[in-house]
Amino acid sequence: MTKHQSKISAPRGAHDDGKYPTVLAQSAAMEAGQASSSEQVELCIARIDDPMGEGIRTFTTVWREQARDVAAAQDTLLRSGYRASPIAGIPVSIKDLLDVKGEVTRAGALALDDMPVAACDAPVVSRLRSSGVVLIGRTNMTPFAFSVVGLNSHFGTPGNPWDRDRIPGGSSSGAAVSVADGMVAAAIGSDTVGSIRVPAALCGVVGFKPTQRTVPLSGAVPLSPTLDSIGPLARSVADCAAIHAVISGEAAVPLDMVGVRGLTFGVPREIVLDDLDIEVGRAFERACARISEAGARIEQVSFKALREVDALNGNRVIQLAEAYAWHRELLERRGADYDPHISARVRSGAQILAADYLSMLSHRRRLMREFDAATSGFDALLLPTTSMIAPTFDECMAAEDAVRTKLLRNTGPFNFLDCCSISLPVHRPGEAPVGLMVAGHRDGDWQLLKVANAIESIIAGA
Amino acid sequence: MTKHQSKISAPRGAHDDGKYPTVLAQSAAMEAGQASSSEQVELCIARIDDPMGEGIRTFTTVWREQARDVAAAQDTLLRSGYRASPIAGIPVSIKDLLDVKGEVTRAGALALDDMPVAACDAPVVSRLRSSGVVLIGRTNMTPFAFSVVGLNSHFGTPGNPWDRDRIPGGSSSGAAVSVADGMVAAAIGSDTVGSIRVPAALCGVVGFKPTQRTVPLSGAVPLSPTLDSIGPLARSVADCAAIHAVISGEAAVPLDMVGVRGLTFGVPREIVLDDLDIEVGRAFERACARISEAGARIEQVSFKALREVDALNGNRVIQLAEAYAWHRELLERRGADYDPHISARVRSGAQILAADYLSMLSHRRRLMREFDAATSGFDALLLPTTSMIAPTFDECMAAEDAVRTKLLRNTGPFNFLDCCSISLPVHRPGEAPVGLMVAGHRDGDWQLLKVANAIESIIAGA
Repeated sequence: MTKHQSKISAPRGAHDDGKYPTVLAQSAAMEAGQASSSEQVELCIARIDDPMGEGIRTFTTVWREQARDVAAAQDTLLRSGYRASPIAGIPVSIKDLLDVKGEVTRAGALALDDMPVAACDAPVVSRLRSSGVVLIGRTNMTPFAFSVVGLNSHFGTPGNPWDRDRIPGGSSSGAAVSVADGMVAAAIGSDTVGSIRVPAALCGVVGFKPTQRTVPLSGAVPLSPTLDSIGPLARSVADCAAIHAVISGEAAVPLDMVGVRGLTFGVPREIVLDDLDIEVGRAFERACARISEAGARIEQVSFKALREVDALNGNRVIQLAEAYAWHRELLERRGADYDPHISARVRSGAQILAADYLSMLSHRRRLMREFDAATSGFDALLLPTTSMIAPTFDECMAAEDAVRTKLLRNTGPFNFLDCCSISLPVHRPGEAPVGLMVAGHRDGDWQLLKVANAIESIIAGA
Repeated sequence: MTKHQSKISAPRGAHDDGKYPTVLAQSAAMEAGQASSSEQVELCIARIDDPMGEGIRTFTTVWREQARDVAAAQDTLLRSGYRASPIAGIPVSIKDLLDVKGEVTRAGALALDDMPVAACDAPVVSRLRSSGVVLIGRTNMTPFAFSVVGLNSHFGTPGNPWDRDRIPGGSSSGAAVSVADGMVAAAIGSDTVGSIRVPAALCGVVGFKPTQRTVPLSGAVPLSPTLDSIGPLARSVADCAAIHAVISGEAAVPLDMVGVRGLTFGVPREIVLDDLDIEVGRAFERACARISEAGARIEQVSFKALREVDALNGNRVIQLAEAYAWHRELLERRGADYDPHISARVRSGAQILAADYLSMLSHRRRLMREFDAATSGFDALLLPTTSMIAPTFDECMAAEDAVRTKLLRNTGPFNFLDCCSISLPVHRPGEAPVGLMVAGHRDGDWQLLKVANAIESIIAGA
């Protein structure tokens, strides 16, 4: 029995019972003088420190005192009419792989613990500070972001908020749990083949992977510089949009100008609907029916490119080649401190030939063009974020590779194709969390957020 | 005896006796009504078709009738006050690797002769057409641009204008000879480790390798997408600047606002002055003395980054990995039609590991930053373009690898570091051509052109 297999029984359905207010609700309450940043931060810290809760496995570092000081200062500023941004005063967590000035960035791993402290904040972190949010702490993650399952043998794994015997998904495991369990209002994650969307789906929160270039990757421990993206997890699409505006440096766009009526969605025939868990199939069908009833057109479409992406397995080649190039020296020096599952996977990148890597990048460029053309007539694509609900820890320990492959099947192609995409919870309260993935066009991030917001508004009423 | 070993004796020193007017002189004469595009084009075609000349080995295609028609049209436009650009009506050649709508792009190789014709012009070609130049033809090159020596076993190799028993340098061999022998006023070449500057130096013309990103590479057969750049060869710095403005789409900047007085130049202590041919050492010393006398400061400086670049031999890793990825399929299908020297080198890229390739790209980024910092106090660096004068064909046949390594030693580091650089002739009329390389800062192309123009003006008076 390992540390992550917490046997604490926690309330089910905490993630979707409206118990924790959204970023925008908190922000509106603060603006109206009905709530303060200090109160929100105290509530978050109390949940993190709840001995019956998952805080200890959800965070690797909590900045309690600094968060209290900053919240108090933000309250003063808010009372004085100084509001740095629409998310000022909101408690937010960051994934452990982001640089914070003066701290060692460990990326959920032991092997980085002797590195020098970061000389400056990652741009994402400094943008968040400028926006007036209160950074609560660094969230736990799969070491080096190296799996969508979410297990961390060094720091433990937080249990899934729906059922603590189940995995949270990863690699942004702590990010998803920190939101679902009300330890923050929003979290920053990263996504290379699904590491934001998979834990968001399995934990019942919203997770947004933007078009890659929109959020700066510097100051983040890389997994695969070609595929990595940084994005938010939160309790609503609008919350994700508000955070995305800050970390991308883009102007926020009002989301409510788009309704579902008249939109056209494609559901890929290829692969993404194969072998769905009963719960996933049912929730997906129900969501599609609701979207149709609201006046959108949904077409099943064949996308040749998706089948080719699946057959190429290009994410594997790109990710392992790039990861090995980054890890090689560290592995030499600190290999003994790696989780052996992870070091074995990293080492498998050693034999990849440069020509195979470069050919894969060419295939990728061609497939991006083909997919752009094939999807141009659709407002977005709809598919289940994962084909399965969160498996139990025991199921994962028995077959981690198979679970990993299954979990990233539907998300990974959208990193390979560099499309923005977002996962929304579409299960019923109390049922196993299921994510609906809405996938948009490259650089169409704000259009996707509008469409997803429209879908969310009708699903919430279902 | 192979086809390239032409025994025709040609006048020596044709390249530097002022016999052929520069682009800007031709342009001024046309504007003043003292010359026409048609006359210039006829002279060019006559030189190409001269049975005693090198035209047959300098061009792979000559567009005689189209060039005559276009020249006549440009004359009409010029007489009517329609001047598309400062280089309208000027005869220009393009390297065989650029796409021209409706033609097969062979890149000096047999193995591409069954490819479909190009669906559209390369951006460089369409920009030249819009500028009103008259495209004369496609110049011969090392097959696939795969060597700075310049030999082409399929189409022959043009003899060096100074001494036809000597090599022209490559891979833009025909480009340099077409300018030096007055078959065009300017040529477009490409440069991966020296393929513009080396033949320019050996043939006694000016050759400019811009910062890589400034000129679009699309529609050009790649050698190494990371290192390839496209630039002009011509008879003066100002001519190169006029062509560069067109192919980069940048606004031309007046060059004559900078004089040599007060400038500070660095001469690297590392490697670039080792083992110089007597002629090269003498011409380089003389040029430096002239530059000093004109009031510039020249400092010998140690650049650690240059020694590291040399030791890493990173161009080899990057170029061969990228070339193999591109050639793999073609080699499978048409390997028998490759020059065996070239197919052997391409195949040597097959074993390069992705991690080694990616590590080299990281080293490159670091060294670029280090070199930028180390050179920031200098207006430019000065060094010999090549350590040797053009060797004879016989010398090359005996030791092609050794000659190649020697020829690219001084130019290659500036592709690795992505600095702009330009080679200017600094030998005395009648002597073996020697190039002075002036190397500038990344994205400092126009500043480098100003500085090189100032140097040219005082060297020309020496």
